Order: sequence, then structure tokens, then C-alpha cells
Amino acid sequence: MTAAAPAGVLTALREELCELHSRLVSSGLVAWTSGNVSARVPGTELMLIKPSGVEYQDLTPESMVLCDLDGRLAAGADGSGSGRGNGLSPSSDTAAHAYVYRHMPEVGGVVHTHSAYATAWAARGEPVPCVLTAIADEFGGEIPVGPFALIGGDDIGRGIVETLTGHRSKAVLMRSHGVFAIGRGPRDAVKSAVMCEDAARTVHLARALGTPQEISQEHVDRLYWRYTHEYGQR
Amino acid sequence: MTAAAPAGVLTALREELCELHSRLVSSGLVAWTSGNVSARVPGTELMLIKPSGVEYQDLTPESMVLCDLDGRLAAGADGSGSGRGNGLSPSSDTAAHAYVYRHMPEVGGVVHTHSAYATAWAARGEPVPCVLTAIADEFGGEIPVGPFALIGGDDIGRGIVETLTGHRSKAVLMRSHGVFAIGRGPRDAVKSAVMCEDAARTVHLARALGTPQEISQEHVDRLYWRYTHEYGQR
Amino acid sequence: MTAAAPAGVLTALREELCELHSRLVSSGLVAWTSGNVSARVPGTELMLIKPSGVEYQDLTPESMVLCDLDGRLAAGADGSGSGRGNGLSPSSDTAAHAYVYRHMPEVGGVVHTHSAYATAWAARGEPVPCVLTAIADEFGGEIPVGPFALIGGDDIGRGIVETLTGHRSKAVLMRSHGVFAIGRGPRDAVKSAVMCEDAARTVHLARALGTPQEISQEHVDRLYWRYTHEYGQR
Amino acid sequence: MTAAAPAGVLTALREELCELHSRLVSSGLVAWTSGNVSARVPGTELMLIKPSGVEYQDLTPESMVLCDLDGRLAAGADGSGSGRGNGLSPSSDTAAHAYVYRHMPEVGGVVHTHSAYATAWAARGEPVPCVLTAIADEFGGEIPVGPFALIGGDDIGRGIVETLTGHRSKAVLMRSHGVFAIGRGPRDAVKSAVMCEDAARTVHLARALGTPQEISQEHVDRLYWRYTHEYGQR
Repeated sequence: MTAAAPAGVLTALREELCELHSRLVSSGLVAWTSGNVSARVPGTELMLIKPSGVEYQDLTPESMVLCDLDGRLAAGADGSGSGRGNGLSPSSDTAAHAYVYRHMPEVGGVVHTHSAYATAWAARGEPVPCVLTAIADEFGGEIPVGPFALIGGDDIGRGIVETLTGHRSKAVLMRSHGVFAIGRGPRDAVKSAVMCEDAARTVHLARALGTPQEISQEHVDRLYWRYTHEYGQR
Repeated sequence: MTAAAPAGVLTALREELCELHSRLVSSGLVAWTSGNVSARVPGTELMLIKPSGVEYQDLTPESMVLCDLDGRLAAGADGSGSGRGNGLSPSSDTAAHAYVYRHMPEVGGVVHTHSAYATAWAARGEPVPCVLTAIADEFGGEIPVGPFALIGGDDIGRGIVETLTGHRSKAVLMRSHGVFAIGRGPRDAVKSAVMCEDAARTVHLARALGTPQEISQEHVDRLYWRYTHEYGQR
Repeated sequence: MTAAAPAGVLTALREELCELHSRLVSSGLVAWTSGNVSARVPGTELMLIKPSGVEYQDLTPESMVLCDLDGRLAAGADGSGSGRGNGLSPSSDTAAHAYVYRHMPEVGGVVHTHSAYATAWAARGEPVPCVLTAIADEFGGEIPVGPFALIGGDDIGRGIVETLTGHRSKAVLMRSHGVFAIGRGPRDAVKSAVMCEDAARTVHLARALGTPQEISQEHVDRLYWRYTHEYGQR
Repeated sequence: MTAAAPAGVLTALREELCELHSRLVSSGLVAWTSGNVSARVPGTELMLIKPSGVEYQDLTPESMVLCDLDGRLAAGADGSGSGRGNGLSPSSDTAAHAYVYRHMPEVGGVVHTHSAYATAWAARGEPVPCVLTAIADEFGGEIPVGPFALIGGDDIGRGIVETLTGHRSKAVLMRSHGVFAIGRGPRDAVKSAVMCEDAARTVHLARALGTPQEISQEHVDRLYWRYTHEYGQR
């Protein structure tokens, strides 16, 4: 890897990241400025992420902030036409995203939300149990709970990485906080965040009036294998 | 029946199917790529269905996939201007849709969703009781539960057909999975899916704070008869 | 009153009624073709109402159906450019609307919905208690429950009129069925239907986790008096 | 301060206020005409507020009503091109907004809503506990409950001011009524109202199935300090 990416790659990634932020809004996962998506810039040691505290309606491809994988503003050409970036500060969750990219090389996109149903499970510190075929498909088992961690250092990132490493799930419920979802790229990570909220909501509703039936581990395994090997376009 | 349909019929059906998929989104029945609608091609042994894993915003009439009633890609002219189809794989639920068309000749449309309230009843394995006049109208009684079945063979299709054959309901809650809804055509099936979620949601809310009052079987019967004989435009 | 209205009045009323139906959709009060709004044609013995079983997206001002106050299709000039109407059948709830207009001369608009939270209270046969200042303002007390009644005769209409006559509330929860709301005109009736669902939802949420505090009858009376005498533009 | 503001300042504030009202709608915080936003006119003893009983879709920058800080219609130039204002009556909640501006000089914007989840807590007279990092960030502790107060005098305003003075929270749940939120300006106040409903909803969901875990006072303090000192663009 090098620290530079072709301008065309960065421009396309900025556009995709901007569009994906609008999907957080249309999917009902975020309120006001909460939530953010980041993407690793392929072939570099850089990432793009939402600027801090900017409203979703004001986001543009150019407003996405280029950082290195320590979460610091990237110096030099960033494809936005400026030598020093766009002057915006990156998301206050940048350190957590950067930690994930440093420690999980297979991850190309990270999403953070406080989506209501998933965050309700996180507030109780309870994993979402795998009681639906869609959860077996997408998460391969329960959606796990990560530790309580304060913002501002490596604690949140470390909690995400320790919880998701070796786990099939691509989403973690950070205790008393919210969701972090990962993926091969940012679109894949947004999908995980959307499906995490959908799972958290449906199981919440099922639990509210009784007890959902269990799915056996063998069935969970077969569903997960099939979904990850045969679903979608080849 | 023959294996060929006039190009104009197929083109119109592709457009309708594309529009009906957007109704799943606007009705809040689907998340990301989950859910699908299919239509039997009138006068043929063919069906059209959503491509696998494609996002709703990217669907076009041309992207709908033409299959035979064994769920295999249809060879030959399909009205999309290509001799071999559009190159997309059909929905991973195609086998279930195809099974329904083979065994229920009166069915012209099938819809599958994981809509949240209905799926919550499915997760508990509980039918939605017929405690509202709208449920008597549309479903003629409770919305029944079908068996747990793994994707990939005929098990889901068989579960749908065995549950709905001889039943007034045009929707079934497949255990730990989600909803399958049928209709004379695809629009009718989408209506069933929408009304199923509406019924599941309203009865969930009623149950959450107490016990809904029963409607007598005689009243259910009279409501169902009237709705199926006098409602709508003649 | 006479049986004829100036064409300009009818045209304007058709447009308003069409717009008000779209408000039912945007307010989340209806699913598929359920729900309907009607308006008394001022200075006549006629009413306009939604056609039966037509989807909301397909409604136009011209598709609204002109009926007499017995719920029969009106003969003669209706402002739609046709001598015999537009050929559409009126809503299957027309008899109930017509009964209200015959027996409550001060009513100029009627709305019917199966909005989910209000219908959940109706399914349990429980009135929505007046535990919020907004309910005191709009309904002057609890939102009452009307009897169970089958569609097809005067039973529903009679149940509405008997429940709302002499009651401050402009909405009634018809048992195991849904909401009927009335107003001086159709816009006023739609407002009642919207506020009824809002009240039903908020009190549902309050009850779900405990007991809402009561508002004294004296305070309810003062709030209702003020809202009906001082609110809005004069 | 003087009673006059440059026309350009007023015009810009009218436009912002109109846009912010549309945010109440798109955020799902209001039904029909309920809810309102006001703004102190910088450098004057005036405020702008929503007209009473006007539907959100009909609001324009010019329809916002200019009042003095006793809540009376302002005489003289108001930037709308008229010497006596636009002829509309101000919101029936104007007295409460005005009381806040008179007694809390640091406040530049006030929002009032009956948003459903927050109002459900208000109906029970229960504060929203600080069990999520987002609540610690935004409100610095629980969202408090204010007294029951009738509309029409200074009681509501006094209840807001007494509850929020010396409190970190920028939102108060007025008992049996709804939310008042404050901010340095109207956008900031709308953000508080949006985040208040988001907090009320998420904690409602967490409570519905169990007990949310507590966050220690030390952690709440650190989160609040960081959010108010380091979040957003500098």
C-alpha cells in the first residue's frame, strides 16, 4: 500500500459515501447529525469519513473528510481540488473507524448509528438472538454486544474489533451506545447496519408478546453457508 | 398453455412488476434487498421474478428475470430484446414461487416479505387472529402459520401450498421466516402482503395492552362473503 | 336545499376531496384502498365520496362519486362533464356516511380509517382516555367507543350518530372495526381523524410503560373551551 | 437592544424559521397544525413565531408572525413589506415562548411539540433517564419533567424556565402536555426537540423488554463535557 490513490478512485468513493449517508436517512437509522459511514480508500493507508456535526441534507461528496488510518487529517492531494483537504473536521467517531481499519484488513467500510431498536438492545446489554432465517442469513448467529467504552481514544475501536474478530456477525451492539457495522466496502457495511436494525425491530416485536421459537444451530449453519455462498448475482 | 407469450404482454408485465416492487418499499414492507414479487405470464408456463440481491432503487422492467415453472432461467425470446435473458440470476426464493404456480393454477402472483409485525407473529409461530372486520374482509378468518422450512428445495413452496390450499387466507406466516402472499395476479398478491402487515400490526398493538374482542364466526362469514362479492368496481 | 349545486362549487370540492385523500396517505392512516373521505355538497342534498376499491395513487378529482343522501348515485349534472356521473361505484362505506349527513345537519365532512393505534383501542372496545391537553383541546374528553355493526345497512351510521350526538368528540372508535371522524367540512373531519390517531398512539405508548396521570374535569373543560373559542385565525 | 432589526436579518430569519418548521414534519414530530418554532430577532426585543392553526404545507417565510417579548403583535416595519404585519395571529403558545425569551437571555430559539414518545413520558410524569451515551452528550443527564400548567397565561413559560434554569438539559417534558426545547438559536432548539424524541423512543423500547443499564455520573459528566467542547466544526 501507498499513501496516494488515483483522483478518479477518490472522486467515485466520495460520491458513493455521500449517497450511502442518504440511505441512513431514508432507512430511518439516524436523527439529525448522528451516525456516520466511512470507507477505506483502496490501495492506500487512507480513509474517507463524514465531517463532524454536519446535517445530512448539507453533505456533498466534497465534504467527506480524508484521514490517515490513525484518524488524522490527511495531508496532500485528496481529489477534492485542494492541497490541504476541505477544511472540515472528521466525525468525532473517526478514531473508532480508524482502529477497525488498522486491525481488520479485510474491512473496507464501517458504519455507526444509534438506530432505535438496535440501541434499545444495546441499552439492556442483550444480544439479538438468532430466531429468524434472515438473521441466520446475514449474521450467522446472534448479533453480539460489545463493551461500554468512552469516546475519545481507542476504547470503542478495540471493543468493536475484539467483539467481531472471529465472529460471523458484521454488526456489534456497543453497550449503552449504539451500532457499529462493518463490511468489505461501505455499501456492504450500510447493508449490515440496515439489516441489524430490521432484525432488532422484528425480534423486539416478537418478544413483546411472547417467546420466539429457536432455530437449531444446524439450521443456522446451513442458512448462513447458503447465503454467503449462493445469494445475489455471481 | 404454450411456452411463448406475445412481446407486448411481457413488456407490460415487466413494467407492472417493477412498479409493484416499489410499492413494497413505499409500504415499508422490505429492508435493503429482502422481499420479492413474481407474476405468472398469462397463457404460458413462465413466470417473471425479481433478480437476486439487486437493490430496489436499481430495479428496472428489464431486470426482472424470466423463468419456467421449475424455477429455471427461460431460454429464448423474453421480450427484453435479448435471446438469452438479461444475464441476471433470479431471486433465491424462485423455487418457492415456482412451486406455488405449479400447484395452485388459480394463482397469478406471489409476494414474499419479512415485514416486521407479520414476521414477529411468525417468529412466535402464532396466527394473527381474526378480531377486526378488515381481517374478516380480506382473509376470511385468521392468517395462518406455515411450517419451518429451509430454503433451497421444495420445502418452502410445499409449506405454502399445504397451508393455503382450501384456506380463505391469501397470506401465510412461514415459521421463523416471514410472509408469502398470493393473488389472482401480482397486484392482488401485493395487496394481500400489505393488508397482512397492517392486520399483524394492528392486532399486535391491541394485544399489547389487553385482549381484543372476538368476532363471531357468523359475522366473519358474512363480512367475507360481502367483501369478496360486492367490494370494488364491477 | 335543492338537489343542484353550481358547477364551480362541485369542481372545487372534488379537488379538495382528492387532496384530502392524499393526506390520509401522507399521515399514515390508510393501507392500500382502505379509508375514505366524503363531503356534503353545500346547499344541496348531495355528497361526494371516494370510489370503491380504487388505489389512492389513481384518485383524481373526477373520480369522486356524487351520491344523494340515501347513498345512491346522483343522476344528472355533477360537474364532471358527464350527465350520468363517472361510471364508478361509491365507497362500500357510503351508507354510513350518508346516514351521518341525514341525521347530523351540522356535519359537512366524514372520514373513515382503520388507522392502527386507534383501531387497536377499538379492537379492545376501550375509549382513549383524556390524559393529554391535546386530547382535551381537540376532543373535549375521551374518544368514545361505538357499537359493533355489520356493513351493508344503516347499522354503522346509526352507531356513529348515537355515539357522537351530544358528545364533544368528533371521532368514534367503532368496535372491532376502526375510526369514523366528522367535521364542519371534510378538512375539519380529516384533522379529527389525524388527531385521533395521534392521541391513540401517544396514550398507547404512555400506557405501555405505566399509568398516565389524570387531568381533572375542570381543566379538561377549560382547555376545551379555550381551544374551541380562541385557537387558530379569526 | 432596540425594537428594530435590519430588514435583511428578518428576511433571513423568516426563511430559516419556515425551513425549520418543515423539519418538524420530516422528523415526524408533529401532526396537522400542532407544534411550533420561534426565534428571537438578534439585537432586538422581538421574536418571530408560527401563525396559529395554519397547516405546515401552507407556511411561508412571510406568514411567520413578528411579536414583542410580551407576546403581542409587533407594530411597525417587520420586513414583510407591511407596516402592520401580515394580519395573522401568532401561535396560541406565544406567551410561553415569550416568557422564555424574557427570562433566559441566552436562549435564541424555542420549539414546542407533542412528539409521541416524549409526550408519553410526559403523560406519566416520568423523566427520560440518562442511559445512553447520546443522552449524556446532548442533555448531560436525564430529560426532566416540568409542572402541569394551563395554556393562556405565564404558567407554562414559568414552568419551562424554572425546570431548565441551572439544568444541563435543553428540553423539558411538560406534564400531560408535551415538549419544550430551547437553544442558542432556532436550529439548535429544533435539534434538541429531535434528539429528545429520539432519546424518549429508544429508552421506551429498551424499557419495554427489561431494564437499561445505568451510566455512572462520572461517565455522564465526561461525555457531556466532551460533546459540548469538542463535537462539530470549530
